[in-house]
Amino acid sequence: MPQQRILGVAVIGTGRMGADHVRRIDEVTSGARVAAVVDVDGERAKTVAERIEGCAAYTETAAALASPEVDAVLIASPGPAHEAALLQALDLDLPVLCEKPLTPDPAGALRVLEAEQRLGRRRIQVGFMRRYDAGFQRLKAAIDGGAIGRPLMLHCQHRNVATPPGFTTQMLINDSVVHEIDTTRWLLDQEITAVTVLRPAPSSAAPDHLGDPQLVLFETSGGAVVDVEIFANCGFGYQVRCEAVGERGTARTGDETGLFTQAAGQWGGTIPQDFVVRFADAYDRQVQRWVDATRRGTVEGPGCWDGYAAAAVCAAGVQAQGTGQRTPVELPERPTYH
Amino acid sequence: MPQQRILGVAVIGTGRMGADHVRRIDEVTSGARVAAVVDVDGERAKTVAERIEGCAAYTETAAALASPEVDAVLIASPGPAHEAALLQALDLDLPVLCEKPLTPDPAGALRVLEAEQRLGRRRIQVGFMRRYDAGFQRLKAAIDGGAIGRPLMLHCQHRNVATPPGFTTQMLINDSVVHEIDTTRWLLDQEITAVTVLRPAPSSAAPDHLGDPQLVLFETSGGAVVDVEIFANCGFGYQVRCEAVGERGTARTGDETGLFTQAAGQWGGTIPQDFVVRFADAYDRQVQRWVDATRRGTVEGPGCWDGYAAAAVCAAGVQAQGTGQRTPVELPERPTYH
Amino acid sequence: MPQQRILGVAVIGTGRMGADHVRRIDEVTSGARVAAVVDVDGERAKTVAERIEGCAAYTETAAALASPEVDAVLIASPGPAHEAALLQALDLDLPVLCEKPLTPDPAGALRVLEAEQRLGRRRIQVGFMRRYDAGFQRLKAAIDGGAIGRPLMLHCQHRNVATPPGFTTQMLINDSVVHEIDTTRWLLDQEITAVTVLRPAPSSAAPDHLGDPQLVLFETSGGAVVDVEIFANCGFGYQVRCEAVGERGTARTGDETGLFTQAAGQWGGTIPQDFVVRFADAYDRQVQRWVDATRRGTVEGPGCWDGYAAAAVCAAGVQAQGTGQRTPVELPERPTYH
Amino acid sequence: MPQQRILGVAVIGTGRMGADHVRRIDEVTSGARVAAVVDVDGERAKTVAERIEGCAAYTETAAALASPEVDAVLIASPGPAHEAALLQALDLDLPVLCEKPLTPDPAGALRVLEAEQRLGRRRIQVGFMRRYDAGFQRLKAAIDGGAIGRPLMLHCQHRNVATPPGFTTQMLINDSVVHEIDTTRWLLDQEITAVTVLRPAPSSAAPDHLGDPQLVLFETSGGAVVDVEIFANCGFGYQVRCEAVGERGTARTGDETGLFTQAAGQWGGTIPQDFVVRFADAYDRQVQRWVDATRRGTVEGPGCWDGYAAAAVCAAGVQAQGTGQRTPVELPERPTYH
Repeated sequence: MPQQRILGVAVIGTGRMGADHVRRIDEVTSGARVAAVVDVDGERAKTVAERIEGCAAYTETAAALASPEVDAVLIASPGPAHEAALLQALDLDLPVLCEKPLTPDPAGALRVLEAEQRLGRRRIQVGFMRRYDAGFQRLKAAIDGGAIGRPLMLHCQHRNVATPPGFTTQMLINDSVVHEIDTTRWLLDQEITAVTVLRPAPSSAAPDHLGDPQLVLFETSGGAVVDVEIFANCGFGYQVRCEAVGERGTARTGDETGLFTQAAGQWGGTIPQDFVVRFADAYDRQVQRWVDATRRGTVEGPGCWDGYAAAAVCAAGVQAQGTGQRTPVELPERPTYH
Repeated sequence: MPQQRILGVAVIGTGRMGADHVRRIDEVTSGARVAAVVDVDGERAKTVAERIEGCAAYTETAAALASPEVDAVLIASPGPAHEAALLQALDLDLPVLCEKPLTPDPAGALRVLEAEQRLGRRRIQVGFMRRYDAGFQRLKAAIDGGAIGRPLMLHCQHRNVATPPGFTTQMLINDSVVHEIDTTRWLLDQEITAVTVLRPAPSSAAPDHLGDPQLVLFETSGGAVVDVEIFANCGFGYQVRCEAVGERGTARTGDETGLFTQAAGQWGGTIPQDFVVRFADAYDRQVQRWVDATRRGTVEGPGCWDGYAAAAVCAAGVQAQGTGQRTPVELPERPTYH
Repeated sequence: MPQQRILGVAVIGTGRMGADHVRRIDEVTSGARVAAVVDVDGERAKTVAERIEGCAAYTETAAALASPEVDAVLIASPGPAHEAALLQALDLDLPVLCEKPLTPDPAGALRVLEAEQRLGRRRIQVGFMRRYDAGFQRLKAAIDGGAIGRPLMLHCQHRNVATPPGFTTQMLINDSVVHEIDTTRWLLDQEITAVTVLRPAPSSAAPDHLGDPQLVLFETSGGAVVDVEIFANCGFGYQVRCEAVGERGTARTGDETGLFTQAAGQWGGTIPQDFVVRFADAYDRQVQRWVDATRRGTVEGPGCWDGYAAAAVCAAGVQAQGTGQRTPVELPERPTYH
Repeated sequence: MPQQRILGVAVIGTGRMGADHVRRIDEVTSGARVAAVVDVDGERAKTVAERIEGCAAYTETAAALASPEVDAVLIASPGPAHEAALLQALDLDLPVLCEKPLTPDPAGALRVLEAEQRLGRRRIQVGFMRRYDAGFQRLKAAIDGGAIGRPLMLHCQHRNVATPPGFTTQMLINDSVVHEIDTTRWLLDQEITAVTVLRPAPSSAAPDHLGDPQLVLFETSGGAVVDVEIFANCGFGYQVRCEAVGERGTARTGDETGLFTQAAGQWGGTIPQDFVVRFADAYDRQVQRWVDATRRGTVEGPGCWDGYAAAAVCAAGVQAQGTGQRTPVELPERPTYH
């Protein structure tokens, strides 16, 4: 089996995430190259492109996707721009890795899902990179392998050092808890059927008007219960933990690791301050697996349905934040082309 | 300061807990001796008493309390018998250590509270022994010392290997979660104001009709939120954990300790199977502190009000189990004689 | 079986260790009381005695031991005074708990051993309190239970924050490593047959002339090899660890425990600064077990032979420090009266 | 800065390590491709080459190195074949990554070192991959950053499940401890000046005649002392640990990580069984860094001198195994072209 040609990737968006993906594909990923970058800021696109041999800069996604050098698309633009780019890629039958969210709203996600359904085969992978984290993969394997019996509960913690300016209470769900939404669906292989949100008195470290932290509760189609601490201004580090409680045991990922030191009356170690550090390997692995699968002509990761379901649960979660009530999640039937 | 006389203790009830307390006072505790044991089963009382020099056996609490050898009372009889024994001890102005629950119901607890209030000073300590566990004491000290800032959340897990015959869904609250109720009140120095219970599909390891595990949620007077996993048939061990999340950090007790071994492809250690093993030191320390305080003429541990408040939250919790609704807890004003 | 009479203990020496033992017997230990204290400093003895009901103060050990109130002796005077006190106690056939060392030199230890041998039965227990530490007891049980197979190596670390004034290089062996000498003999149930000492360039935190840290190596009669890091000015805390490596696995005690905290970018906990904190439970348990056994008329803990063997290995260790050579340990045949 | 051309690598040797490197360069490494494979077994070379587009198979190293497609060489043939391949590569001024050992003996290593010295610049990197392990890199950074003060001791454990057939006592040093030799030199930035070996009674799990485990002791030019447990038939897993003890604290890498589970009365996790699993990331990173540096025209990793020094210490170590004596290591002056 001779090696396939190097995959030419168009990266849409050259902000923090986009620039990081460009660097990754250029320096880390095997079997792919950055063939094009797109940014509405043409200067920024050009600056990025100039550093990479054979990389063209565009301000229009359509122009980039039309290039014969482009075999696949990585979307890292702001969420509201995703739907248009996704539909264009589907029109051209191009494989896509789309940073989360698929779209910011369930309606848009449903339109993308329907477009892919019309195409009749999977083309889109959504960037839920935790599925590629070594720790979460071990947790998934432990659950699927029956090591802890049928899972009954998940206990999750999701902590960030501090929120950037403009961060809203809704974004606690849409930007942060969305990862636990996907994690829950993936680990349990069940849909989320209801969301409840409990709101403690906010931390004085949270900016005005931000109801941080919160305790978000999911119920699932298989009868599991999930609690998620989201604390976006915890101050001490970036931390993602998940403990699955099953009928016969528990399994947990996200414990502290790294160098163990003793000095000045203390034992312990340092906590990563940033998700890019914590999940660096997961991002690398996600892109490498996507490139590998794409070169083999397949799509394997989380897809359109996962992006749509996450958007639907997010919408229910935001509603639950507002009302304080248990809020059911209604999903249409899952399409069968997957 | 010459040493006070050895405290003569009457132990009411010689079942599992009572017999263990008799052994403790006889062999472990300094400054106290078992002067009397009481059991409705006179043979059992006599058998226990014979092993201890200067210990008399009774079938009636009143007779034991009237003995001039008895300076203090330890109540370890079944919960429904507590109220009568407590009121008798208060009548005689005897100091009491009463195994939890103070009484099985809030109404009984209120009557005891009022009787002690009429006496005008604290005589009763309730056996919430976790307050004497070294780990929980460190957690309390960390919170009170400001190490983690104002506490916002507690995450608790309470797991037993298996339930004994006759264990009911209500007992998950009244016998098990009652400890987290006291822990929450003590650690946060706040009252619990509402209870919600989420019930996953029961574990197949739970006996018929037992809704095990459950996720019990507390809201507190200071705006904190507490989640408690109660899992009474977890199968793998006895385990009590608590993580406090504050504005500036977290603190956790109940992690695995003991011998660290590596063999046959596994690293780790063993989990205690029984609360008597896990909290042996806490029981020893509780009784020693009670004896020490009693000999100094004071009462220091959790008291009648704590027993009453726990009973009131338990009642709300059992109601919440049944309705699935958030259930407020109403307490009268706290008496000031304490 | 009626309870025996309360054991009257004479405590010889009221310095740091002696005063702590007086407090322990008075407040913690069940079944014993401090009947007499002895100190060459009569005022200090009187001050201590006055706080305890029925306790007499002496400046002469002989006078205290002659008191009819004294049933047993706890020796906590400086090492050079041990031999005389031990021989006096043996003359009176009194049970003794003697703080380590039995005597500072093998010759003195041998004289005590021979005196006890003439008496024909064990009367003396040596205060190697690690044998009563819960962690070391678990390690011993794991080894004896075969969990790791035949033990081949021990890796030990023994760290103190800082040395007191006057601490010498020889005291690294005689005062500190002596604990690992007993631990090795007890855990492996073997004698130490040779000692080698490697001396790194001293830490700049060590006082002038003190060769701290050192790596002390033991070979044993069963072919095991033991390495001991002794670091008496490590600066960061008091720490004792031991990992046993067997044919099928390893077992380790002394890992960090206590409260787990996260704050300011760090996870971890605090390290005890003092052996009294680290081994408080072991001291309590040692004295309680000694009192219990004494009241039953037996001696169970480490005895004269253990004290003698430790002194002999210490002497070889000090010689090995000086020569840098592997130094054999020669022991006479173990007496059989034990 | 446009990207350089894809590096064409010749892999010499297609056994276990060679085949793994071929897979790595083909699937994982960015910016490189396998241009040629060499094996004395021509069929094996051909089978490997056929799976990779543009890869030629050779039975002679000289022929492969002469190919215009070959820009760099990765040597993974058996140790005795290294010297010839290294000298050929130096003749052609080709950059080399050579699996350890550089050569099996100090004399051969010295000849390679001299050949590179004549060339006047570094061309050779030796495959001490631990320098690329994230844990060891953190340990190095902690030491270099002064977090623990001047390092005084290293405690190392190196454990394998079992030895393959034909494994000899000398190979404990040459194949296993050689990694601790490089780790010691790299972490401390010092040379090893003496080796002593203590040999416990062998494990009954070790094959006949193999003196396993052993305790290997290094002294270094800066006065540090290092102890290494090598246990090649420990049975329970593959494990590499290192604790650095400094004047102000300690730092340790190699602790257990991965999924934390609780089931059947046990807490803990699994131990990797194989170095390929344990150090997979280190191998990936080593090759990627070597490719990156090579494409920039530099050599950065451990070089000829490191390979030579390791061979010299190994020779002393094997001698020390035989004599039981402290064995000095004599090194010539380090060449300055590095």
